[in-house]
Amino acid sequence: MSVSPFEHPFLSGLVGDPEIAAEFAVDAEIVAMLGFEAALAEAEAAEGVIPAGAGQEIASRIKAFEPDLEGLREGVARDGVVVPTLVSQLRSEVGEALAGHVHFGATSQDVIDTSLSMRLSRVLDVLGARIDALAGLLATLSERYGDIEVMAHTRMQAAIPVTAARKIRSWRDPLLRHKSRLAGVRESVAVLHFGGAAGTLDRLGGKGQAVGRRMAIALGLTAVADARHSERDGMADLASWLSLVTGSLGKMGQDIALAAQSEVGEVKLASGGGSSAMPHKVNPVGAETLVTLARFNATLVAGMHQAMVHENERSGAAWTLEWMLLPQMAVACGAALGTASRLVDAISFPGKDDA
Amino acid sequence: MSVSPFEHPFLSGLVGDPEIAAEFAVDAEIVAMLGFEAALAEAEAAEGVIPAGAGQEIASRIKAFEPDLEGLREGVARDGVVVPTLVSQLRSEVGEALAGHVHFGATSQDVIDTSLSMRLSRVLDVLGARIDALAGLLATLSERYGDIEVMAHTRMQAAIPVTAARKIRSWRDPLLRHKSRLAGVRESVAVLHFGGAAGTLDRLGGKGQAVGRRMAIALGLTAVADARHSERDGMADLASWLSLVTGSLGKMGQDIALAAQSEVGEVKLASGGGSSAMPHKVNPVGAETLVTLARFNATLVAGMHQAMVHENERSGAAWTLEWMLLPQMAVACGAALGTASRLVDAISFPGKDDA
Amino acid sequence: MSVSPFEHPFLSGLVGDPEIAAEFAVDAEIVAMLGFEAALAEAEAAEGVIPAGAGQEIASRIKAFEPDLEGLREGVARDGVVVPTLVSQLRSEVGEALAGHVHFGATSQDVIDTSLSMRLSRVLDVLGARIDALAGLLATLSERYGDIEVMAHTRMQAAIPVTAARKIRSWRDPLLRHKSRLAGVRESVAVLHFGGAAGTLDRLGGKGQAVGRRMAIALGLTAVADARHSERDGMADLASWLSLVTGSLGKMGQDIALAAQSEVGEVKLASGGGSSAMPHKVNPVGAETLVTLARFNATLVAGMHQAMVHENERSGAAWTLEWMLLPQMAVACGAALGTASRLVDAISFPGKDDA
Amino acid sequence: MSVSPFEHPFLSGLVGDPEIAAEFAVDAEIVAMLGFEAALAEAEAAEGVIPAGAGQEIASRIKAFEPDLEGLREGVARDGVVVPTLVSQLRSEVGEALAGHVHFGATSQDVIDTSLSMRLSRVLDVLGARIDALAGLLATLSERYGDIEVMAHTRMQAAIPVTAARKIRSWRDPLLRHKSRLAGVRESVAVLHFGGAAGTLDRLGGKGQAVGRRMAIALGLTAVADARHSERDGMADLASWLSLVTGSLGKMGQDIALAAQSEVGEVKLASGGGSSAMPHKVNPVGAETLVTLARFNATLVAGMHQAMVHENERSGAAWTLEWMLLPQMAVACGAALGTASRLVDAISFPGKDDA
Repeated sequence: MSVSPFEHPFLSGLVGDPEIAAEFAVDAEIVAMLGFEAALAEAEAAEGVIPAGAGQEIASRIKAFEPDLEGLREGVARDGVVVPTLVSQLRSEVGEALAGHVHFGATSQDVIDTSLSMRLSRVLDVLGARIDALAGLLATLSERYGDIEVMAHTRMQAAIPVTAARKIRSWRDPLLRHKSRLAGVRESVAVLHFGGAAGTLDRLGGKGQAVGRRMAIALGLTAVADARHSERDGMADLASWLSLVTGSLGKMGQDIALAAQSEVGEVKLASGGGSSAMPHKVNPVGAETLVTLARFNATLVAGMHQAMVHENERSGAAWTLEWMLLPQMAVACGAALGTASRLVDAISFPGKDDA
Repeated sequence: MSVSPFEHPFLSGLVGDPEIAAEFAVDAEIVAMLGFEAALAEAEAAEGVIPAGAGQEIASRIKAFEPDLEGLREGVARDGVVVPTLVSQLRSEVGEALAGHVHFGATSQDVIDTSLSMRLSRVLDVLGARIDALAGLLATLSERYGDIEVMAHTRMQAAIPVTAARKIRSWRDPLLRHKSRLAGVRESVAVLHFGGAAGTLDRLGGKGQAVGRRMAIALGLTAVADARHSERDGMADLASWLSLVTGSLGKMGQDIALAAQSEVGEVKLASGGGSSAMPHKVNPVGAETLVTLARFNATLVAGMHQAMVHENERSGAAWTLEWMLLPQMAVACGAALGTASRLVDAISFPGKDDA
Repeated sequence: MSVSPFEHPFLSGLVGDPEIAAEFAVDAEIVAMLGFEAALAEAEAAEGVIPAGAGQEIASRIKAFEPDLEGLREGVARDGVVVPTLVSQLRSEVGEALAGHVHFGATSQDVIDTSLSMRLSRVLDVLGARIDALAGLLATLSERYGDIEVMAHTRMQAAIPVTAARKIRSWRDPLLRHKSRLAGVRESVAVLHFGGAAGTLDRLGGKGQAVGRRMAIALGLTAVADARHSERDGMADLASWLSLVTGSLGKMGQDIALAAQSEVGEVKLASGGGSSAMPHKVNPVGAETLVTLARFNATLVAGMHQAMVHENERSGAAWTLEWMLLPQMAVACGAALGTASRLVDAISFPGKDDA
Repeated sequence: MSVSPFEHPFLSGLVGDPEIAAEFAVDAEIVAMLGFEAALAEAEAAEGVIPAGAGQEIASRIKAFEPDLEGLREGVARDGVVVPTLVSQLRSEVGEALAGHVHFGATSQDVIDTSLSMRLSRVLDVLGARIDALAGLLATLSERYGDIEVMAHTRMQAAIPVTAARKIRSWRDPLLRHKSRLAGVRESVAVLHFGGAAGTLDRLGGKGQAVGRRMAIALGLTAVADARHSERDGMADLASWLSLVTGSLGKMGQDIALAAQSEVGEVKLASGGGSSAMPHKVNPVGAETLVTLARFNATLVAGMHQAMVHENERSGAAWTLEWMLLPQMAVACGAALGTASRLVDAISFPGKDDA
């Protein structure tokens, strides 16, 4: 056990997902925040908001810049957000002449939320590809075992026989729907957040929209008319989707654990977890983990919806709550897709003759 | 207080929504379930699954049929679901000759889930129209007060002034996005559920799909290749959307309650709630209620995601959990939209001169 | 389906609990609120806060008083709470001379919260007695079947045999602990709420505490030094306990549903739910319902904890959220205890010979 | 942002708690698990279950033993729990002659759950002491500012003036109650878990209870008649208490954030968070963080209650869910107590003259 099993030295073997977790590591976060600042400076220079040379100069200084992490930690403890200290360190780095052109007209939330958009876009790419891959594995499973007859169970009782193909379709079809829902979620998530102190870009004269469009192109995001600082529907929509995916995988895990029961034996696991007291057992660890991850995300999704009640132009309380929940939900979703793929690879339907 | 404030003799004045609640009343439920049985019989007759005359005859007998509610209650207590008793009562009603053609090849979940699809489709129509109306009211509010300067607040502190128009856009824009998300939710929800005992329509020979297509047309739903009995992503997706809507309205309510504070006074309420101890007060009851309804749905949405872990071909436990949560979430969403419209009608931005 | 299955014409057969629900019915609520007003007037008269005769006179007029429900509904819609209108109706009833002595020095929350304390005390009595009764039934079950050998299952796999007695103890022991936790919960719940407008009893001179002590005795509650209007730990503690109870029963239900699986057959149900498609089935409806009720309360408990963030001296938003959740949780707990008792009565452990 | 803000290089400055987190670090976990194995060997030797010398020998070899973490990670990935691999590594370490006496008669859950009991007992000590300290700080605050008049607010509107002392009591009194609830929670938590494969200590002959009593004394825990492997009320009770504490602190934070609003100014912060766009601001970061942590635990508590539905003698799915939630809840509670103490130190009530 550890505060976070996702990063625990050994529990991460069960529920971790290094590829997704990497996007929430401090390195990736700083790279993305500095990417925002570089894109901002270059766009403002191009639009004449700051001097022509300042943009490229700032961007090039950023490349070599390494923030002082301990200072950032103290800054967050004081300010509730890392950006004031990060910007202040960066201004020291670029020197007095350029300092005033760094982060010009932007606010902490622009940096944090955009940095998150950039990384979540990549996370959605990975999750989407994994859904496709898993759907493919299930199709293969069905080709191999689809004709085998298994017992359907309703209300925990044997009902009538069905084909394994029917059962597998009930696992695969929701994944296809989640994949098609992904486009809408991406639209909610992959946006540039750029509004300045109170969402009006007040310090950019009439050039805010033009600067924003340039930044969006540079960062691979969509520019929107108004910054959505206090409109958290995109984050809650993403959280809901992550939990929909883990929920469907949890259902598959539950089905497999039930079918693999000693007394049922309609699904066989190529290998399973051992026990310290009973070495003969083959525990359906992967299947159980899918149930765990489903119930985990189904728990946390509530907090992401609570965080929609975001007071005024920026709520420290509600915003911080998102930081505590969303990364975990994304990693749980990634881990569930990875676990599911390994599980599907490891199961067989023995059929009557081999049972 | 009462078990359900939505139907409480006086609390329903605060959080009730008779129009949405009506779709979850027992009358509407029975009408929809019998509508399923009539459509089933007619479609099966048309496809030759049951005798040609039986379809119309059953449909016409259904029109006059009134089930015995006390019997249904006993049936649910025993079977966990109302359909076995309802079908048995209906079979008695139509007489021995037709009895075998009633509910032929269908299962309880076909009836319950389709009956819910029919009613949820109408609920989504109402909610969609209300979102449009509310967005219209906010546009009007902005036309009237948009130029007034109000203070933006970040992290519970005054920041810089913005126009009321900017603030109102932060309330309205999420509604427009929820409206555009509605199409996808409707696709998840407005489907025919028709799969028979274990989702294979095993008793209909090769005619299951054809019968289903006829039923879907008759009931105004979409026919799908496989019944989704155990695939609950549609229900969880709907629940998430209901909570997204109430979440955005809760944010607006929170903003209005903060702006209407005695010490702030940037928003005025034409009228407000009185106090039994302090008659001078004008309490922002509607605004608070929006926060309540947001936090209510943000709580319940977790249970709908938990219910996705639906064992095998039908989980009594997970399915019943949906019945306990989803209707409340729909009514809470309806009530929030109604409350928000009345609230927007009742507020003004006094501006500096009138404050 | 219905907005609330607890009060639904037929679903209440499955999850309803008329005895507990009665405490949350409008009748009981009004009786308790008027009981508060009568006790207040009598105590204030005894302490000389209002004229000597006024107390008894008001108390006797209250006995004959029937509020106008439609008026109360309108009042709640406006004020967010029923008390201002109820008091106003009561003042009309008692006439001008006594009107000023009704509800003197009290506030809405005193009435609502104390009325709830009175009814929750009775609810806890009922639940406590039911826990005892259920523990007794389990002891009897163990006497009858305790020696039978059943298979222990860990991680969904057969482990080693144990006695039924061991299994039954794992269901019964938590109930005994819940019973012993009940004393602490009752202390949290069975208190008089009496603080006036802002919790200071400002209008009672120095007599607030003395009046409160008299009222507490009359109403069977504990007097506390300060009104806990904004301190909601008692309510959240109660909600947690209700969910602990349903959680343990859900575990028992899950075990029974697993043991009663067609392929396992270690537990037999004397009778079970039927199916509209498969008349041969014996569905473990009661066991599943226990799982449902556990997951329902485990969902709602989160909202009761959210409601602890109660702004200032009274939060309309957080308080109303409690009204929407707590009664349902109490009824769910009652229903689970009732369902569990019927289930324990209906199960047997067939043993190897009869399996 | 990071997967876990509690361990994030800079966010931990805001929500981290190194003292509590240390109990969930892998080092502490391994020490505690090995402490279990040593106590087990010594107790079994003392009771003659294993040879007399084997106990001390194993205990002394354990002192020098350092497990291979990478191996443990692979073991968890396979087995779902670390103990089989840990025991296997330990058996290699002690050599063939002693190997069979290591972990004799115990099971994974004995080790994991007892290791957690040991560490949670210490966590409760720390939290209890912090509650006392915070209550002391609030008493001091009241001594200093208690006479100052502040405005009470009900339903987000100014009501009547009260003393600061009254307001501070409404923050302090719940803490005193949480402290007194702690004794019951400790009773739930600080127990030895020792049941063997299926909770019957089947391999210890009649000596299981005697061995358990010795172990409990050695480890500072309470011995109980039956292992509670599948009875999770203790864990859910603890989680509820952690959330009660953070809930009350969140209420205090919300009050302070409201009182410190620019337009209200009844509470002053000695220092506050800065903004990257508006250097003049003093943001109530600590107060907001208390709200965040309250809503975080109020979210996660639901999952701990869901985990009570623990199938049969051991549920991999429900058990793992606890590991994902409980450590975070404990750290959040610790962080909230720390943040609250710093906040109370930093606030003043300026009173009318200084406002």
